[in-house]
Amino acid sequence: MRLATVRHAAGTRVVVDAGDNEMAALPSEIVDVGSLLGLLDEQREELVRNALAAGDRYAAADLGWLPPVLRPGKVLCVALNHSSNPDRIMSGPSTPAMFIKPSSALVGHGHAIRLRPDDGRVHPEPELAVIIGRRAADVRADHAMQYVFGYSILNDITAPDLRAADTFHYRAVHPQPGTAHGVRHVESWVSYSARYKGADTFAPLGPWVVTRDDIPDPHALRVTCAVDGEIVTDDTTAHLRFSVAEVISFASHYLTLEPGDVIGMGTALAPAPSGQAVQNADLNHSGARVEISIAGIGTLTNTVEQLAAQR
Amino acid sequence: MRLATVRHAAGTRVVVDAGDNEMAALPSEIVDVGSLLGLLDEQREELVRNALAAGDRYAAADLGWLPPVLRPGKVLCVALNHSSNPDRIMSGPSTPAMFIKPSSALVGHGHAIRLRPDDGRVHPEPELAVIIGRRAADVRADHAMQYVFGYSILNDITAPDLRAADTFHYRAVHPQPGTAHGVRHVESWVSYSARYKGADTFAPLGPWVVTRDDIPDPHALRVTCAVDGEIVTDDTTAHLRFSVAEVISFASHYLTLEPGDVIGMGTALAPAPSGQAVQNADLNHSGARVEISIAGIGTLTNTVEQLAAQR
Repeated sequence: MRLATVRHAAGTRVVVDAGDNEMAALPSEIVDVGSLLGLLDEQREELVRNALAAGDRYAAADLGWLPPVLRPGKVLCVALNHSSNPDRIMSGPSTPAMFIKPSSALVGHGHAIRLRPDDGRVHPEPELAVIIGRRAADVRADHAMQYVFGYSILNDITAPDLRAADTFHYRAVHPQPGTAHGVRHVESWVSYSARYKGADTFAPLGPWVVTRDDIPDPHALRVTCAVDGEIVTDDTTAHLRFSVAEVISFASHYLTLEPGDVIGMGTALAPAPSGQAVQNADLNHSGARVEISIAGIGTLTNTVEQLAAQR
Repeated sequence: MRLATVRHAAGTRVVVDAGDNEMAALPSEIVDVGSLLGLLDEQREELVRNALAAGDRYAAADLGWLPPVLRPGKVLCVALNHSSNPDRIMSGPSTPAMFIKPSSALVGHGHAIRLRPDDGRVHPEPELAVIIGRRAADVRADHAMQYVFGYSILNDITAPDLRAADTFHYRAVHPQPGTAHGVRHVESWVSYSARYKGADTFAPLGPWVVTRDDIPDPHALRVTCAVDGEIVTDDTTAHLRFSVAEVISFASHYLTLEPGDVIGMGTALAPAPSGQAVQNADLNHSGARVEISIAGIGTLTNTVEQLAAQR
């Protein structure tokens, strides 16, 4: 089943793919795909059955696409989760490392990616997105897949110049061993991601949520990313270093996952045969078009709009 | 005006401080302080006036305290925002650096801080919290204070051992200058904060939101933090490196601030006369009690509960 949250002349609606570029609308009190997650499976299936049988029908061309979940509690992204990364890692965790993008960064398929002149270089990061269906706290890996409602596509937009700007090299204060109150300074590096990962429009999500039963193996999906028509990534989710179940289990040991939470599984970054890579696909020019496709889910397309310098 | 979101036998309610340890309840359809933010000033004032005149009265002792805003879109925290920090910073931004704590990390006054054995060391960080009242996008500093609804207290709980664990020293992929598709590797450090800053219960917030008109100068407030009764911080918000207005203006240039968003203004870390510092106040022992007081706002108290090893 493929679901989306859309804007139509009739208002914001959840639609189910009815084939032939037609969408069947669920009742208007269902404001986003997230609102379906609190329902029992049977209630949700009945709503979808009724929509396909008798719901309003919209043509795809008449729709504006919104993030499937309008306001998730968190978009939790896994860093450096590609099997090729360990070759580049001199030291780092042997468990998933994670950061958070705020819901205010989300935009839907077709929405502009708005970039400021001072964002510097900006590149796309094509990722499998997991939509959490049930509250998950301290979940075992062999139970974890039951907490997945479905899958979508996340473009984890990243501004590496802002990342460099928001990195501190500093003397961190640590306790002085063997003393009650003493401190010592330890030379450290720390980087902060709210700006370089979380700015407005830095999280295109969609167009569809495909329910879990339609994706029997989330680790066998081809992922491609094209910028201005040129392929910059041709990869597969088989290259994820930590699996969906491992990430859900690990994350839920620390952060309770809530229905509607989105997990970005980490960048698919195998370069295209041309040698092009996501990191040198600079989007910060007006009209740049990014298309991310994941087999069985769809294609997420967004175009860059350059903002004038402000203030 | 001092407002709080509380749990009472009668359900979750917003209350206004009526003095003498009595709280006057607003109508039950107002589920948290965040729900008040969409109202016109006059509507909000009328609700409060009616509550004080004729609302249910609760005794403070009968209440459980919840985060004033139950589910903010984001808790945006400013890193290293103390006037003493530049002495320790060898390189870093000259603008506010920010990270995000998820709403799932929030707990109210009196709620347990739940720590896992594998969290390692955990310390408190006492911070002035700003509650955003109106949508703020690209706001000028001299207009920024109009977007503040009020102030609260945030304990920005931090696990430095997890921070060290989630830091990568790696060869980042950068474009090779002068080539169309070439890449080069640049030795880099990057750290990810979802776990060490965003775990469940790592964001105690409250007890009160004090409205802006009651805090004429948010940069003249004494901040103290005590662990197990011993003062570890005795500081003032006069030491904030970037002001409330500067942070709102800067943040809103990148991330739209929404009503109910919380900004953690950065750690008050002037050590107590004993030389004790927040960084060597390890909370990871059962029963540790943390009290953070900010003049004019109140005292936020939370006690540690140690979890058994899981899974």
